[in-house]
Amino acid sequence: MTLLGGLAEIADVGRDAARGGYSRHLWQAADLELRAWFVERATRIGLDVETDRNGNLWAWWGTPGPDAVVTGSHLDSVPGGGAYDGPLGVVSALDAVARLQRSGFVPTRPVAILVFAEEEGSRFGVACLGSRLMTGVTSAATALALTDADGVTFAEAAASAGMDTAHFGRDAASLDRIGLFVELHVEQGRGLIDLDSPTAIASAILAHGRWRLTFTGQGNHAGATTMAERRDPMVAAAHAIVAVREAAIASPGSRATVGRLRAVPGGTNVIPSTVDVWLDARAETDAQTRALVADIESRVLEGVGECSFALVEESWSGVVDFDPTLGRHFATALGGVPVLPTGAGHDAGVLAAAVPSAMLFVRNPTGVSHSPEEFAEVEDCVAGIEALETLLRRVL
Amino acid sequence: MTLLGGLAEIADVGRDAARGGYSRHLWQAADLELRAWFVERATRIGLDVETDRNGNLWAWWGTPGPDAVVTGSHLDSVPGGGAYDGPLGVVSALDAVARLQRSGFVPTRPVAILVFAEEEGSRFGVACLGSRLMTGVTSAATALALTDADGVTFAEAAASAGMDTAHFGRDAASLDRIGLFVELHVEQGRGLIDLDSPTAIASAILAHGRWRLTFTGQGNHAGATTMAERRDPMVAAAHAIVAVREAAIASPGSRATVGRLRAVPGGTNVIPSTVDVWLDARAETDAQTRALVADIESRVLEGVGECSFALVEESWSGVVDFDPTLGRHFATALGGVPVLPTGAGHDAGVLAAAVPSAMLFVRNPTGVSHSPEEFAEVEDCVAGIEALETLLRRVL
Repeated sequence: MTLLGGLAEIADVGRDAARGGYSRHLWQAADLELRAWFVERATRIGLDVETDRNGNLWAWWGTPGPDAVVTGSHLDSVPGGGAYDGPLGVVSALDAVARLQRSGFVPTRPVAILVFAEEEGSRFGVACLGSRLMTGVTSAATALALTDADGVTFAEAAASAGMDTAHFGRDAASLDRIGLFVELHVEQGRGLIDLDSPTAIASAILAHGRWRLTFTGQGNHAGATTMAERRDPMVAAAHAIVAVREAAIASPGSRATVGRLRAVPGGTNVIPSTVDVWLDARAETDAQTRALVADIESRVLEGVGECSFALVEESWSGVVDFDPTLGRHFATALGGVPVLPTGAGHDAGVLAAAVPSAMLFVRNPTGVSHSPEEFAEVEDCVAGIEALETLLRRVL
Repeated sequence: MTLLGGLAEIADVGRDAARGGYSRHLWQAADLELRAWFVERATRIGLDVETDRNGNLWAWWGTPGPDAVVTGSHLDSVPGGGAYDGPLGVVSALDAVARLQRSGFVPTRPVAILVFAEEEGSRFGVACLGSRLMTGVTSAATALALTDADGVTFAEAAASAGMDTAHFGRDAASLDRIGLFVELHVEQGRGLIDLDSPTAIASAILAHGRWRLTFTGQGNHAGATTMAERRDPMVAAAHAIVAVREAAIASPGSRATVGRLRAVPGGTNVIPSTVDVWLDARAETDAQTRALVADIESRVLEGVGECSFALVEESWSGVVDFDPTLGRHFATALGGVPVLPTGAGHDAGVLAAAVPSAMLFVRNPTGVSHSPEEFAEVEDCVAGIEALETLLRRVL
């Protein structure tokens, strides 16, 4: 596949040989390399880069100040993710600003490109962590205590990346500078395939959250323990995974997924003592999502047998309705592009509760995302950059 | 719990803080430390230790030679395993030999204590790898190409532990020295609980094997992909895990377990592209085990939906019937202790096809094994050492 120039520059950073695609996780080598690339790239077009208290990067065109127009996205990925989810918004922002500069455009408001930290939540489990910390939706105490798969705390990882752990948390000073936030992002479903448009404006984001389901049984020998003697949490977890799908199908418009499972101890010849599965559940309203999870919980309880079961909420994002006036204005400015909801969470959705926010989607010709096969045609990416430039001209 | 002295000496080696219990895997730090401990411990009672071509340790009392009486077990563990499975047989062998020496006993045949490599198959996936290599049941070429969870090959791991990879494989010279092999092992089921005996002799080992079931679907975004659009291999794997249990229950006396699952990429907000599950299946005859796996395969196929599915055999061990004359002789020598079958595989089972072999079990008061809760009373462990000493006196 042919990559947009900016994406080609980082095409070798954080490749995952085992999973395919990219694994770029907060403050690990690939993420640090991408941050350094961004600083260099932004500096080259005359922007001044700063890191805020929560690890987000800001590249300013002109003097930082209030009522700024801010655009950007994120550079981290899911494990084995694609090249577009996140980085497309960052490289498009850099290109759109460079086009404005080359045209001699003089903005009337401050402009910044913002790169959010840990949007995917792939290292510490909470998505949109950088924007959640900035807006105070997630507290510093909660974030600092999160652990990664190796038991490293967010606080330890932050300190080792040179961050001051005393300064994490709600960042009113940064937030108050944002007059308007626009995030360009590759579309993650099949929404634009039939609409024959390379771009679209977002109308809403489904309510969504993450829950950990823990099944506890009796660890034992796989050969010496009869079927009747077992309390096997893997079987309970399997019933739960089937129940998750059945519950989502029974709730039209909902999505529920188990993408991650951890068996302890995890040996082939060992009945596990504990199995954790992580549930990602989404629906069109907060109430529908809560009802879905309650339905899942009751269905799961029917299949736990003699194992014990606990469900813990790890994150929650209520439904986001982007400002409809702003959305219509932007769609019109782009010649009447479609206005679409999305099932994917975004930092723009977190910011929307605090500042006027909008999203600009670029067509995904297969609808595949969070996969090495994620793709967008170069022509559509260029159309996205032109659209972002158009919107920036409109508001600057 | 109070540990037998020899086990107390290694009680701190290879503890697994995350899983509990011990993770002692071939040629990793804990295994190397245990090997060094064994060399020191055997040398202290005047034995001469050598490493054979396949990484097994031999400690000789007197001159190595043919028709030797050999006893021992293994020091490696399952992930998060107990203190007894393997090491009890090694420390009991050391103690039994020391008792014979202290009593002034002069053996008429060579005596060796044998410590097998990778009995659990926890690092490279094939159980009893040390005895399988020695007997030629597994070829050197097959073994050297095995990989661990980090992608390290058996050949690489062997070389880094100082082994000569050109010399792995069937070791007739070592095998021909064994006149009789006796393995003492903690019982791994509930067989001795009701029989009121601290020890027993093994009659047979169930047929058993390991298979990898791979489910392939379409990796995608957990929020942006509708339920109808999905090809989710985690759901197919969940149906399979339920089917594995149902098939085993439908085949009386059989055991089938999924203790390990790997989702690729394994992100909470990602529908996996591939899920592997490992099946451990066992039954009283080879034919019954083959029929069980065939039944599992057909049940799994019913639940794969639009995913693709492949089943690969990773290891196979036919049913082992230990020499019944030898078993009766040993049971009588111990005052008429029970003679029991076991569902657990052992190196003695692999050797039984090549040389006269027997097993001596020590009571497990809960039947729990492959778990940090695995246990044997000190008095029963001492009874095991005395029984092993009695058997050695009988044959030496």
